[in-house]
Amino acid sequence: MPVRIPKIGSTLSREKIKNIELFARSCRRTIIEMTTEAQSGHPGGSLSSIDYLSLLYTCIISHTNDPVVISNGHISPALYAILAELGIVSKKELINNFRKIGSQFEGHVSRHVPGVWYSTGPLGTGISAATGFALAQKITNSSTPLKEKKIFALLGDGESQEGQVYEMMNFAAKYQLNNLIVFLDYNQVQLSGGLKKIMPLRPASLFAAAGWEVISVDGHNIKKMWKALSRAYTIKNKPVVIIGHTIMGRDVSFMEEEGKKFHATWHGTTTNPEDAQKALLELTLNQKEQNILNAFKKTLKFVAEKPKFIKSLTKLSLKTGPVHTYSPKEMLDCRTAYGNALLDLAKLNKNIIALTADLSVSVKTDLLKEKFPERHIECGVAEQQMVSCAGGLSLSGFIPFASTFGAFMTSRAKDQARVNDINETNVKMVATHCGLSVGEDGPTHQAIDDMGSMLGLFNTMVLEPADPNQTDHMIRFVASHYGNFYVRMGRHKIPVLTKENGTTFFDANYKYRYGKCDLLREGNDLTLAVSGSMVYQALEAYSELKLKNIHVEIIIISSQKKFDATLKKSLLKTKKLLTIEDHTTQSGIGSQLALFCNEENIKLEKFQMMGVNEYQTSGTAEELYNRAKISPNYIVKKCEAML
Amino acid sequence: MPVRIPKIGSTLSREKIKNIELFARSCRRTIIEMTTEAQSGHPGGSLSSIDYLSLLYTCIISHTNDPVVISNGHISPALYAILAELGIVSKKELINNFRKIGSQFEGHVSRHVPGVWYSTGPLGTGISAATGFALAQKITNSSTPLKEKKIFALLGDGESQEGQVYEMMNFAAKYQLNNLIVFLDYNQVQLSGGLKKIMPLRPASLFAAAGWEVISVDGHNIKKMWKALSRAYTIKNKPVVIIGHTIMGRDVSFMEEEGKKFHATWHGTTTNPEDAQKALLELTLNQKEQNILNAFKKTLKFVAEKPKFIKSLTKLSLKTGPVHTYSPKEMLDCRTAYGNALLDLAKLNKNIIALTADLSVSVKTDLLKEKFPERHIECGVAEQQMVSCAGGLSLSGFIPFASTFGAFMTSRAKDQARVNDINETNVKMVATHCGLSVGEDGPTHQAIDDMGSMLGLFNTMVLEPADPNQTDHMIRFVASHYGNFYVRMGRHKIPVLTKENGTTFFDANYKYRYGKCDLLREGNDLTLAVSGSMVYQALEAYSELKLKNIHVEIIIISSQKKFDATLKKSLLKTKKLLTIEDHTTQSGIGSQLALFCNEENIKLEKFQMMGVNEYQTSGTAEELYNRAKISPNYIVKKCEAML
Repeated sequence: MPVRIPKIGSTLSREKIKNIELFARSCRRTIIEMTTEAQSGHPGGSLSSIDYLSLLYTCIISHTNDPVVISNGHISPALYAILAELGIVSKKELINNFRKIGSQFEGHVSRHVPGVWYSTGPLGTGISAATGFALAQKITNSSTPLKEKKIFALLGDGESQEGQVYEMMNFAAKYQLNNLIVFLDYNQVQLSGGLKKIMPLRPASLFAAAGWEVISVDGHNIKKMWKALSRAYTIKNKPVVIIGHTIMGRDVSFMEEEGKKFHATWHGTTTNPEDAQKALLELTLNQKEQNILNAFKKTLKFVAEKPKFIKSLTKLSLKTGPVHTYSPKEMLDCRTAYGNALLDLAKLNKNIIALTADLSVSVKTDLLKEKFPERHIECGVAEQQMVSCAGGLSLSGFIPFASTFGAFMTSRAKDQARVNDINETNVKMVATHCGLSVGEDGPTHQAIDDMGSMLGLFNTMVLEPADPNQTDHMIRFVASHYGNFYVRMGRHKIPVLTKENGTTFFDANYKYRYGKCDLLREGNDLTLAVSGSMVYQALEAYSELKLKNIHVEIIIISSQKKFDATLKKSLLKTKKLLTIEDHTTQSGIGSQLALFCNEENIKLEKFQMMGVNEYQTSGTAEELYNRAKISPNYIVKKCEAML
Repeated sequence: MPVRIPKIGSTLSREKIKNIELFARSCRRTIIEMTTEAQSGHPGGSLSSIDYLSLLYTCIISHTNDPVVISNGHISPALYAILAELGIVSKKELINNFRKIGSQFEGHVSRHVPGVWYSTGPLGTGISAATGFALAQKITNSSTPLKEKKIFALLGDGESQEGQVYEMMNFAAKYQLNNLIVFLDYNQVQLSGGLKKIMPLRPASLFAAAGWEVISVDGHNIKKMWKALSRAYTIKNKPVVIIGHTIMGRDVSFMEEEGKKFHATWHGTTTNPEDAQKALLELTLNQKEQNILNAFKKTLKFVAEKPKFIKSLTKLSLKTGPVHTYSPKEMLDCRTAYGNALLDLAKLNKNIIALTADLSVSVKTDLLKEKFPERHIECGVAEQQMVSCAGGLSLSGFIPFASTFGAFMTSRAKDQARVNDINETNVKMVATHCGLSVGEDGPTHQAIDDMGSMLGLFNTMVLEPADPNQTDHMIRFVASHYGNFYVRMGRHKIPVLTKENGTTFFDANYKYRYGKCDLLREGNDLTLAVSGSMVYQALEAYSELKLKNIHVEIIIISSQKKFDATLKKSLLKTKKLLTIEDHTTQSGIGSQLALFCNEENIKLEKFQMMGVNEYQTSGTAEELYNRAKISPNYIVKKCEAML
């Protein structure tokens, strides 16, 4: 039987509609079976959105393999049922193993399942990632706009209460993402009750106010939804939301009854085996219907791509160009070195892209912006959108550098970084203005606990350069190695580090690798493990101590989670460790080095930490270091006390 | 001269308008002087909003002392200038010390300054806190609605791009906060450029779509703004936003010129001394004008309240009632014990209030909700709004318990918790569904790094109960002691802990205090420092080990940042420590106990940690513990290996 792809804009034949309805009914059966077997999961919203998904997958996705993001990840039963119906995954395995230990069919939509583009669960993140997919298409195909793929996303109505959804709305409108088609499953029921009771929202007005094309449709009427989709394809210059008026628990009488009353009874509760039998009876396909469905399914030649998981630190084929070496005569902020390196990389590679949240000049992505405006994505003051969107861009082949202040990246957008982490994306978060280095902006802007947010993100590597030259090496490394990175750096200008003979320390011959510790100064009395802007402070202390005949060894620590033999050797020699950082010691390198010593069984005679363990006020970086007692004079005192 | 308070709804006399304009001009001078002296700060938006603020403070606030929240905290020069003009702070001190080390006049609006209600900076947080102030008034005065105070808030237009502002919009509309009057400083310029370029927004449409009353006005016309304010007072059942069309840098010709072109030149850049002279010349008040202004100021008898900072752990006058003791025969989840205790507290104290984000049934605040619906605040799926709003409620005398899953509290709302922390509020964040205890929902919902978010929040105490009885004790403690707390607990049912004789461990005689470690089982071979649901797992291991003639000591750890002599004594005895937690060890009690031992100079022979150091999938809690290798069998093995 030849594949007959329904043409967008055409009217669906009665036969086709019947086929899709049978397809949906069969999916409904799977939804009931899997959630009943698991006695866990979300049947209600799965049943309300399954008609749209059935239409979408059978008439579009199974022919185009366009990206689909299910942002309301708890309706995983619906998506998984579709994939099972299409033969992408085993229906039997799905029904037996959903939400069970060791199964790929996790409770929320997971990218480990073939055909899934982005793992979701925490609400609002997926839809922003979808804008990343859409934007990637736009940029890639900017010369051939008609050949664009569409990006489809599903959004919950309760989900639409998340601020991130609003950030996404404004972003998609600004970038005129007319290749993004969102279906809002407007069943008006959320986890703990009716939408009107819990948090009344008028999504049509809100989306329209944000500049979207809004199409309202009966979300259970295949014919009308096809018309809505067809209309969505014709929209120019704006994104489209199809508001599907649906009923929670649709087509299972006792569930639908509750759904019509806007009761949340079946949002997150599963049927017991007895009720399931009743439901399945209502959803029976007789032999004739089953035959029709089987024949229909044969026309769908969907081969979903297997999820691509790339191991962190895998070398990417990227031109990194020659490093730039700043002269020891210069005082420079690391963020300018970042901006310069990023521009270099963008010149050499078309897939380097920058994002920021209204801070391009401060975070120095403005250098890239000037040359490549089309690859500079300005998200406005919307850090959550920025980080999730970067996730989507990275899974579309771009290498996104997302930049804002450390305080906002790791506090406002931690959840988004976490969901990217679970997705094993390739996002480079480069945060400037970290630590007391921020200076006059005061405590709300001084990120002194930013690394704490990253400790449990197992697929995110945390780096901090010690000077502009190391920044340059590091940024080129980060760009050319797969994985999520969080690179933190300060705001103020610091000296270029030198060897004892006065030449550049991080020169052209330096090779950065993840976890590298660098021996800056030798000494036998005490090891100083120092990061970031604290290094030049420690260097001052070093000279002063030398005059007092105290010889400390300075090891530059440039990552929070990985350390190497250079440090170990030093510790075995001196048996005394002082860590110094522009960050709280509780979650910074202090705490992590304590664990390292224990793990490596390094028995220290003395171990002390210096860092920022209370809020500071405004002031210059140097004044604040002094006030926080981590300036050279305090380092000297501490070293003396330790000997 | 008698104080003449202009009546809302009246027309302002020409004389009064002139007075206010002079007041504003004098403030403008201060803004220029302080930012020039600091060579740091944000003059542009300060100048665009100063006319409204001058009107507000002279005609309303200085008579009512109604709360004002400046959500766009970077326009601190404007607020501080007003407070100086009103004599609340010294103008000279302000001009000389703004943004300088040791000064109370921090870069962003700080609650350390008299007359300031909430510290701001990270955009969007202040406006949500303002809804907390407004809601507090509503609840307190629900029987006397006409006597309500108004709550005034300032919002930036760039700021309005933050998702949190949208969450706030929906929340304020739902709770019909007609006592909230927001002024949106619509100068159409944000940090890095014109609003239309950076992120086009139509605030009037967006606020209207969210159900607000929108009033547009010339933000430099005192007469019209007074009319707008008067109209705002008449609005019933909805919050009001006054969109003030303003010009960045208003009234300084060379700044205004840029502002009119929507250039961001003067957003975050200060005048050099020479330009400042030009500006001040334009803003001169001649002797006659100065006399008029002085006379006007004498009519303003504003006595701003001094900021109230209460030391953490200060005992509050609160009825805690008798503890509830669950019998060892029961299996119970800690969250139910939380819900029960919270209800008890609410019965005894009118200022106990609960907030949730569409999870009342899961987090068990539904028990309070049933009895006291007016004190159960349902924020919808909007965790950021919930946490900041709780901050505002707490500074209004309520004791808010904000609850959601751990993954969302500490990831989605970390920034909001951080800003509350800086404000030294009294917010009780109680997160359920922490750790692998979540089970089937999968990795996106398993908070195994939530404590990492809290390590750098110096005014937030982190707790975890070990069973339902300790939960009860702990919740009563948390309610009755000032400060921000983060209490984490699991989802699944766990046994009530018992003494060796089988009686309840945390019985009615137990006294919880912050940092308390509890000796559950004695042993000489090895100390197990265990938290949360891991305690009953360790207890199983204890019994098994006993059969092998290995005697471990179990110490229950119930806080992440504070430990006591009970633990120390055990460690000095056994010299061997194994930490066990349902959390990553990198930022959990593992890492913090490593630091504790170092700080207390406890020399251990062996130190090992068990925790969750990679993502898990779905499964039951017990299955996941086994998979993560922290179940009793693995504890037994680890103990054996350590001896």
